[in-house]
Amino acid sequence: MSRKETLVLGQGAVIRAWASVGGKKEGEGPLCREFDLVNGENSLGQDSWEQSECQLQQQCAELCLRKGEITPKEVDLTLGGDLQAQCTATAYAMRSLGTPYAGLYGACSTMAQGLALGACLSSSCLLPRVLVMTSSHFCTAEREFRTPLEYGGQRTPTAQWTATAAGACLLSPKGEGPRITALTFGRVVDLQITDINNMGAAMAPAAAQTILRHLKGRGTRPGDYDAIVTGDLGQVGSRLLHEILEGEGLPLPNHRDCGLMLYDLQTQQVDAGGSGAGCSASVLCAHFLPRLAAGEYRRILFLSTGALMSQTTFLQGESIPGLAHAIELEGCI
Amino acid sequence: MSRKETLVLGQGAVIRAWASVGGKKEGEGPLCREFDLVNGENSLGQDSWEQSECQLQQQCAELCLRKGEITPKEVDLTLGGDLQAQCTATAYAMRSLGTPYAGLYGACSTMAQGLALGACLSSSCLLPRVLVMTSSHFCTAEREFRTPLEYGGQRTPTAQWTATAAGACLLSPKGEGPRITALTFGRVVDLQITDINNMGAAMAPAAAQTILRHLKGRGTRPGDYDAIVTGDLGQVGSRLLHEILEGEGLPLPNHRDCGLMLYDLQTQQVDAGGSGAGCSASVLCAHFLPRLAAGEYRRILFLSTGALMSQTTFLQGESIPGLAHAIELEGCI
Repeated sequence: MSRKETLVLGQGAVIRAWASVGGKKEGEGPLCREFDLVNGENSLGQDSWEQSECQLQQQCAELCLRKGEITPKEVDLTLGGDLQAQCTATAYAMRSLGTPYAGLYGACSTMAQGLALGACLSSSCLLPRVLVMTSSHFCTAEREFRTPLEYGGQRTPTAQWTATAAGACLLSPKGEGPRITALTFGRVVDLQITDINNMGAAMAPAAAQTILRHLKGRGTRPGDYDAIVTGDLGQVGSRLLHEILEGEGLPLPNHRDCGLMLYDLQTQQVDAGGSGAGCSASVLCAHFLPRLAAGEYRRILFLSTGALMSQTTFLQGESIPGLAHAIELEGCI
Repeated sequence: MSRKETLVLGQGAVIRAWASVGGKKEGEGPLCREFDLVNGENSLGQDSWEQSECQLQQQCAELCLRKGEITPKEVDLTLGGDLQAQCTATAYAMRSLGTPYAGLYGACSTMAQGLALGACLSSSCLLPRVLVMTSSHFCTAEREFRTPLEYGGQRTPTAQWTATAAGACLLSPKGEGPRITALTFGRVVDLQITDINNMGAAMAPAAAQTILRHLKGRGTRPGDYDAIVTGDLGQVGSRLLHEILEGEGLPLPNHRDCGLMLYDLQTQQVDAGGSGAGCSASVLCAHFLPRLAAGEYRRILFLSTGALMSQTTFLQGESIPGLAHAIELEGCI
């Protein structure tokens, strides 16, 4: 028996509350007024960039729970992760948050992965109140994947700028809020891209595959959604996504990419756009969820896209596996 | 409203098939005859240790699916992770396995975390066929957390030996096999241990807390289980676990630690015992699941225990957060 491509959740899982936190550059971008909180400087008063990112995630989780009017004691499970080796931004944030915790690693696909898993757990009432969160920080990601800031490495035009940002969502089986009504877990797709400064190209084929699987599984067309949102393909990856889908006879006029929304590419020197687990997470929570809640959007398809390499596999000459998960969100009508 | 500590699954999720793969040293230990497959040399014919670990996980997943008599196309979701930065052993193994994939990071707690999440997804029939897998490799872990092998670093008596091993389980809502009937997701516990060569001490308080929460949630006593199994506390952590639980009036005469079962501590020079995500995963699949299936054990409580630091946080002087998840397994009667 072959599996179903897409899981439909019936009533779905409600996103009862959400929060978004940004750093300095994110606060100077087009979404500056949409974040719940913008930090004026990226150290957040901490001694290391790793601690700063941890603090970013703590801020975001606390804001989300406050907006959802529940305490950490009432949370059944937190699903979270980040880009640092061994996901330490999240693990260390969990010391103070104190809820039951299951760590995820999906690189920049973490938010959609967490929301997809969380929607299953919450909508089935097995674990009703699930907190999903993730973050990224420009300075930790440069050290983790490229070179420490002090090295002053040059960027290429295809490079993306890792967002200093976090997003968090609180799920519940019922209540008010946008609902996750269907989801498609991605498969790893690797078309042998080896350029760590062109992750958009590595992730675009995975995004295309997941979009096609989801549309097929749901029996929908792109026009059935108010927007089809990808996480952080940036300029290069977005162009490739359009090329792939046009080849399948499916133009995407309503495509939005969080990596192209978070910054002003003309003035903010982010090359091909934003990236990082916090990019799609914060843009979802700052921009799309409020509009779904207000009824401005009726239905969107949201994908976070991940590039699953490490600095070690990159130095060993390995190619970059891409992964994209999709969740379908319905607004409050 | 406060949350329930422990989730009871009713009929539970069936572990329909499982597989365990070991490396050279594991094949020379007390469980040598219980592994499905032992590799005579730890490179597994690959060019890097990272690729070797990836291969280990592929072997194990393929064996498990073959034993479960299903193809990758029939798997609804694979939950997996490992200790490498960005979980690359699993991500790269997923290129060839090709099922939908959600990556986990729980350090050495990955197997219990994956089984706990997988049991929820499978038993609710949302994602019926879930493959859970994890691995570790001595040589990748030394490079990742300590020093490359070529450095020839000295080991301390409290150090544990990262297992070169993998374990995989195929879950299903019904059928023949041991069942996961209850579970408790762990909370991060950090008692300020900073010695990266004494992870048993960092993980023991988390294991004790989860055992206490699970027993309270289930209304059971240690004697209600044929065995209470911890992942890889080793000699130091196991002694601490007994001390903590005796202080709570709960001696654990039926405690087994996978880190003390995988190797012969007298002759195999592993210092305080085995560790690594593959340790509890492979001992569960090689030793405990066959005995549960044979009716030799009626009910066990199985915990994998994780230490959530990275080399970066260690070098920054951070303490080690511990985490332990518990699953309750019932045998075939």
